[in-house]
Order: sequence, then structure tokens, then C-alpha cells
Amino acid sequence: MDIDAVNALPYEEFVNIFGNVVEKCPIVAAAVWSRRPFESLTAVEAAISDFIDALPESGKEGILRCHPDLAGRDLQSGTLTRESREEQAGAGMDALSSPEASRIARLNDDYKERFGFPFVICARMNDKASILLQLSERCQNERAVERARGIEEVKKICRLRLQGLVLTDATNK
Amino acid sequence: MDIDAVNALPYEEFVNIFGNVVEKCPIVAAAVWSRRPFESLTAVEAAISDFIDALPESGKEGILRCHPDLAGRDLQSGTLTRESREEQAGAGMDALSSPEASRIARLNDDYKERFGFPFVICARMNDKASILLQLSERCQNERAVERARGIEEVKKICRLRLQGLVLTDATNK
Repeated sequence: MDIDAVNALPYEEFVNIFGNVVEKCPIVAAAVWSRRPFESLTAVEAAISDFIDALPESGKEGILRCHPDLAGRDLQSGTLTRESREEQAGAGMDALSSPEASRIARLNDDYKERFGFPFVICARMNDKASILLQLSERCQNERAVERARGIEEVKKICRLRLQGLVLTDATNK
Repeated sequence: MDIDAVNALPYEEFVNIFGNVVEKCPIVAAAVWSRRPFESLTAVEAAISDFIDALPESGKEGILRCHPDLAGRDLQSGTLTRESREEQAGAGMDALSSPEASRIARLNDDYKERFGFPFVICARMNDKASILLQLSERCQNERAVERARGIEEVKKICRLRLQGLVLTDATNK
């Protein structure tokens, strides 16, 4: 799909295709549709980034809270979104040893208790060891630092999902 | 559920319960969780209203674009959210005559073509005749007027969904 094809999409199709580039936040794609025409996929990404940056801090926390735990209940019960499932599986989150699973569960709970939102990391840019290390380190941050850090990760995830959608689509045509 | 129980909910439970009070926009409930403790259900509703009002115009349009058409494809294919299905059925949208269905489909298309977002109305506060009348009348409005009008309707829907959740819960306990 080239950018002209993206720009020609009615909002319903645009939201169907790009609605989960920010996890469970179709409002983001639905909002940036107002900013068409886009010059490039990078411009779509920039519009999404601008939209997120313009949200109040509570809205940024809201985005984080729409994300599932890594190796958490949704992975175990099969209720992850397709994108999250693939990303978590790619980082080995679906094949943890029992001690690893217990350690991540405990760290996730500590993190959520401390910050009031979940630990968000771009799983596709990390492996299991790196995720465990960052989870234990980031638990020590200040709340505002961690909110900003989580949003940076949301944007990385978004970029890869956008690229994946466009590449997948190109392959299919 | 009294307001103390609402205030005691971890964000995951809060989003599970209230995530669809604004259709397909769990970010809204997830964001207002940051504003706890609430004095009353009215305060929850006010926090949601404030959050929506603080969004840029594109974000308000984004909320509208997360709503399904009335008597549209999602109703026919069974892919409405539970809340929307019940609301649309209550207003008779699932039992239209063929001429009524054709007329609504045409007006919905005209509306979306003109405004770039769907016609949103609080179905539970209207019947079929009133919905048809307003759909044909509101097609004539200016875009900014209609965006504000749609958001007013989103807030009415939200209020009734909030009340429904609390009442349903109270009945179950």
C-alpha cells in the first residue's frame, strides 16, 4: 500500500487497518485521519506522535493502561490482541520457565503498584534477558520518568506495527 | 457498587468495567482513573466529560469515528459491542422495514460523506421516528456544529452506560 492508497481510505477502512497501531486505542488512528493527506508513512507516524504528545498526562497514562502485562493474564488466557501476541511470542514471553514466569509476574505487580500503569516495552526490539533487566531497573524510576519512558516505547511499537501493516499489505498484492 | 467500591478498583478492573462507556475508547476510562478518588458517579461522568472536552478537535472526531453506524454493517453482521447492540435494538434499529433500512443507509452515507465521521445519537433517548428525523435534519448542519452535537450525544450515551453498569451491578449483589 503506497501513501496515495492510504490517503484514499475512508475513515472506516483506515481505522480497521490502523486502529491497533496504538494498542486498544483506535481513537488515535481515528483522530489522525483528520490530518490527511499524508506525504509518507513517516508523516502518519509523526501525526500519531503529535496526537499522543498533546494529550494531558492522564491521557498518556490512559494509553499505557490499555496495554496488557508482558507474560501476563491475557497471554495465558489467549485474550491478547493479535499484534501483542505475536510481539510477546517473538520475545519468548510465551515460553518462560516457571521461575522466570514467577519473577516477571512479581515485577509486573510491583511496577503496577508503584506507578498505576503497566510496564510497557517494545518487545520486538528486546529479548527475554533484556526485558527482565529493564523491568527490574525501570521499577526504580520516578513516576513521571517512567510515564514518558512508557510512551516512548508505545511509539516504537507503533512504528513497527505501521511498517508491518504496510509491508504485509505490499506482500499480499 | 457504591463510589467507595469504584474508587478502590485497580485500573485493570476499572477499565474492564467502564472501558466502553465511551464506545471503543477504553483510553477515556483508563485516563480518568488517574483522577480518583471520585466523590460520586456524577464526578466520574464529569471527569470523562472534561477529558473529552480537552481533546483537540481531531480527537473529538476520533471518538465519533469509533462509533458504528446506526442500523449499519456492524448491526447486520453481529459485530456491534454489546452496549451498542442493546441500544440500537431498543430503538428498533434491528427491526426496520426494507424502505426504512434503505433510507437510513442512504442518509448515513450522505452524513459520513459530508462530515467524515458517523451520525451519533443516544438511541436510548430516541425512537425510530425521532432518529430518522434527526438524521435527515442534522445532515444539513455545519461540520463544527455537528462535531459538537455528536460529542453531546456521546456524553448522553456515556451517562446512561455508567448508570446502567452501576445499577446492574447493584442488582447482582
